Amino acid sequence: MPRKGKSLSESVADDILAMITIDKKFNIGDKLPNENELSTELKVSRTTLREAIRILVAHNILEIRRGKGTFVSEIKNITESMGLENLSTQKLDVKDLYEMRLIFEPETAYYAAKRATDKELERILYYGRLEEEMILNNEDRTEVERSFHKSIAKATHNEFMNKLMPILYKAIDNGVILSDENKSILQNTLNDHRMIMEFLEARDAEGAKTAMKIHIIRAMKDLGIPNE
Amino acid sequence: MPRKGKSLSESVADDILAMITIDKKFNIGDKLPNENELSTELKVSRTTLREAIRILVAHNILEIRRGKGTFVSEIKNITESMGLENLSTQKLDVKDLYEMRLIFEPETAYYAAKRATDKELERILYYGRLEEEMILNNEDRTEVERSFHKSIAKATHNEFMNKLMPILYKAIDNGVILSDENKSILQNTLNDHRMIMEFLEARDAEGAKTAMKIHIIRAMKDLGIPNE
Repeated sequence: MPRKGKSLSESVADDILAMITIDKKFNIGDKLPNENELSTELKVSRTTLREAIRILVAHNILEIRRGKGTFVSEIKNITESMGLENLSTQKLDVKDLYEMRLIFEPETAYYAAKRATDKELERILYYGRLEEEMILNNEDRTEVERSFHKSIAKATHNEFMNKLMPILYKAIDNGVILSDENKSILQNTLNDHRMIMEFLEARDAEGAKTAMKIHIIRAMKDLGIPNE
Repeated sequence: MPRKGKSLSESVADDILAMITIDKKFNIGDKLPNENELSTELKVSRTTLREAIRILVAHNILEIRRGKGTFVSEIKNITESMGLENLSTQKLDVKDLYEMRLIFEPETAYYAAKRATDKELERILYYGRLEEEMILNNEDRTEVERSFHKSIAKATHNEFMNKLMPILYKAIDNGVILSDENKSILQNTLNDHRMIMEFLEARDAEGAKTAMKIHIIRAMKDLGIPNE
């Protein structure tokens, strides 16, 4: 089942990309086989293949050299197109980002409940309470909301998680155009954060994880992001 | 509960880092309060504080300017020290990386079971079978192993997951010194991969996720990485 909305040429482009990055069938600098061969191998029409190549050229993954053929681009371009280095500056799909939050953040709450020092727990609760106040006073809570979630990630004592978190948020900043927050979102945030804080304070790892999961699922629902 | 083995000065260094990155109490270029004030605020001795500052200086997060005081380093250094950009080139804790795999990879199997195109599923099975053969023939399977896991990540159709995967593996390359593989690791890999492939082929998302979880837990056990 290809993802809804993906055209055949996009899916062929994906396939060629995988032949480069996963199969290592074509390496950087390699010339692709000619259109006839490649369209036979991929079992698509030459029109579709041409469209797929155009997509990859637009992403700097392939380049056409006049009179010479189609080549896999130099390493710099591939890295730029593929790397996580610039993941936070790219416009990623909102759904992809929230799906990642849904996988990742409940686990940060789990490990934070187990591992937070007293000081780290204090910091989490401080931001949680500060955000409550700001919501009740109708103030902009963006920064404090992030500090709340970041301080949880820090308390996991896992360097990778700790560093992934800001990247996730930066990507969200670049990719997400949120609709105006309504009363229900604010009320849910108040309730969810209170739950998360209670379980963290009780050092209940499963509770904290589940409360965080609810929080992200509810955010997705409130933002109209499908969770399927 | 501070993590076992973390000294008091390391934990104070952590705390100062959080005051910069989470609390935004000190910004880039800011001068820190003098030793007396800061040690009182952090409730630690001046000796401990000095050691903590030394750690942060070594990580380019703080810098001491002779006769002027201690300052938060320029943004470039902070970014370099903090960013995920170079996460894959840093030596990260093996446990941190496997913990992240444990969170992340079962979910890739889950979404791959739901979303893989027929072609993507074919690619996953191709690498799975190729790896089986290589294990049985005592050949080096490092590359094929990675292609197997990467092709699963690709089949999630989630751009963020797809890009996170190579970073995770690059970091593992840099950080992990694996002991020689023994018979039991090879046998477990054979069994686990077969399970993962079966569930993926049956498009059983929960099954694929659980089989992948077993696979990572077992790898951690075989490598002696604590899972707690």
